[in-house]
Amino acid sequence: MRPIAIIGIGQTKIDEQWEKSIREIAVEAIYAALKDARRESAEGLFVGNMMSGILNSQNNLGPLVADWAGLKIPAVKVEAACGSGGAALRSGLMAVVSGELDSALVVGVEKMTDRHPHEVTAALATAADADYEGEMGVSFVGLNALIMRRYMHEYGWKHADFAPFAINAHANALHNPYARLHHKITLEDFEKSAMIATPINLLDASPIGDGAAALYIVPADSMQSSTRILIAGSASATDTIAIHDRSEPLFLTAAAKSAQEAYRQAGVGPEDIDVFELHDAFTIMSALSLEACGFAERGQGPRLGLDGNITPTGRIPVMTRGGLKARGHPVGATGVYQVVEVVQQLRGECGETQVPGARIGMAQNIGGSGATVVTHILKVG
Amino acid sequence: MRPIAIIGIGQTKIDEQWEKSIREIAVEAIYAALKDARRESAEGLFVGNMMSGILNSQNNLGPLVADWAGLKIPAVKVEAACGSGGAALRSGLMAVVSGELDSALVVGVEKMTDRHPHEVTAALATAADADYEGEMGVSFVGLNALIMRRYMHEYGWKHADFAPFAINAHANALHNPYARLHHKITLEDFEKSAMIATPINLLDASPIGDGAAALYIVPADSMQSSTRILIAGSASATDTIAIHDRSEPLFLTAAAKSAQEAYRQAGVGPEDIDVFELHDAFTIMSALSLEACGFAERGQGPRLGLDGNITPTGRIPVMTRGGLKARGHPVGATGVYQVVEVVQQLRGECGETQVPGARIGMAQNIGGSGATVVTHILKVG
Repeated sequence: MRPIAIIGIGQTKIDEQWEKSIREIAVEAIYAALKDARRESAEGLFVGNMMSGILNSQNNLGPLVADWAGLKIPAVKVEAACGSGGAALRSGLMAVVSGELDSALVVGVEKMTDRHPHEVTAALATAADADYEGEMGVSFVGLNALIMRRYMHEYGWKHADFAPFAINAHANALHNPYARLHHKITLEDFEKSAMIATPINLLDASPIGDGAAALYIVPADSMQSSTRILIAGSASATDTIAIHDRSEPLFLTAAAKSAQEAYRQAGVGPEDIDVFELHDAFTIMSALSLEACGFAERGQGPRLGLDGNITPTGRIPVMTRGGLKARGHPVGATGVYQVVEVVQQLRGECGETQVPGARIGMAQNIGGSGATVVTHILKVG
Repeated sequence: MRPIAIIGIGQTKIDEQWEKSIREIAVEAIYAALKDARRESAEGLFVGNMMSGILNSQNNLGPLVADWAGLKIPAVKVEAACGSGGAALRSGLMAVVSGELDSALVVGVEKMTDRHPHEVTAALATAADADYEGEMGVSFVGLNALIMRRYMHEYGWKHADFAPFAINAHANALHNPYARLHHKITLEDFEKSAMIATPINLLDASPIGDGAAALYIVPADSMQSSTRILIAGSASATDTIAIHDRSEPLFLTAAAKSAQEAYRQAGVGPEDIDVFELHDAFTIMSALSLEACGFAERGQGPRLGLDGNITPTGRIPVMTRGGLKARGHPVGATGVYQVVEVVQQLRGECGETQVPGARIGMAQNIGGSGATVVTHILKVG
């Protein structure tokens, strides 16, 4: 693969941004990325978004965002449910690798808080199988609850064993000015939080929000700098969309496949990853992602948290900027936030939650309950 | 650009397919393309679709369709309003050009007839600017009516002058078994048809429908055959999403830009194009597309129809399989149908509407009222 570098990052705070439209939020992140890259435009724009058609009565986000940014450039939207941001980066990457474009902007954006929570819940359920899951009335949190309940039964974990994922995320988000939530939580908070869908409590689940994050990518050979952030691996994979169709519903097969391919491209393995921004939409997904990517044996993901291995100074730091759990989960933007955060780590810009000496980082973005997974590995090089 | 060949095509009849779900329709076209290509799978799947989130309560079409097809391959959805099909092909193309994939399936699919027409009209309006056009209550046909009315005023055309576009489309669709409409129309029918939004009559407008079309692409150098259908040019461009923001609302700037870039890549000009599948969502768009792509002077598009130059034996044959007007317009699928039809022409498979000796064909897919435009040029080579 032609080596590609990320030379600009941008993000907005994740919040209830009722005073801004979806195009304004997207452009705020784009302008930040352009400024960071010291560029005025790019040859193409790739927008990651899942639900603007449903929640904002707006499709055709490519020209909408390009137009509002004042950039009359080719632009398209890429959708892969909650994996839309990672998928948009992968599309932009392939356009630059192919030589069709010499630079690309990638922006992930979602505006979710203008609508009633019931509407948002219904919109999120479109990530699942509408005919065989959604039609039965199961929500997206309900599907994850089924997985978590089975996982606890199968491997003997208690609910409290998942607490370290949420506690670590909240602790790290305290130091991220763009994060949605800025409060520490304790084990007691975790256990006493409101039930959503047994066994998923409020503090197992990530908050939605309005937000956008952006990246600016170029061929690495066009750069002079000696400290470049390179995309060393990029891979996507799919699984069945419905959980009941999987032979192993407790293993994220697509996450494993895309991680293995990204490892292969980058010439590294899990032991080389210094920081891992994973897709902790629910605490159970943190455990499953760590297992699928080779950081823990099957059924042993929670052990990494309980043993203190997931903090910024632990063996495999995750959610170092708050993760979906506390940075927030503006669905189609999340995959781009993850990559922005890995770049921040590799640049050494993370202050209190900096992973010491981070040189190789991974971001994994999941669409649906493991149906689409996009993995990127970044390297200082 | 690494030369890419189309080795498989597939399509479903465009109809009210109430007995089939969106995944079944998509897979029907995919299986036809696989059979045509004599392949069993591909390395990636690109789904073009605009409205499944709104009309089918289903996002995440990438894994949904890959899964139903029995193909556990990387898959993603690409959206650019009515230009989604062309945009999906362009995404698949870049993935193969980049060397990331050695083969790709592209499918465009839309399922529109399960819902009440009012819901479909609202869903289609999401292609326009929700805040500054849709919010004012203007529908998509209303926006096109504003353009057509101004065009007639500016250049002095009568409504009947647009009839040849619709008459040609219906005449050609008679010979296309996949077309939605199979009846001839006359000038009298055209003039007497029901008014939708002055000056747009029913017979100025294309019918919606349920349908899917698919393509199978590979690097051309992997083929032995001497008669290959090559993608010689591929380009996209954007304009403002809202019509009122355009300095020249009667000229499709993005169509002109993407056509010029595709011509440049293919090393041809409008005089070399043997067949042109254009985006005749409304008759006015046929005129504007012909002008933007260099087949007529500004304001003179209708002249080509009146002079008999757009039929299969004319100077620039358009809608040779019925176009959006009579083949039908399943929105996110349309751009793929157009390319499938150009392939049929270049293969010489079009029977009564075959363009004699067709060697170079063009397909242009428009999203919104000219906001996103994707142009492909195919060549026998």
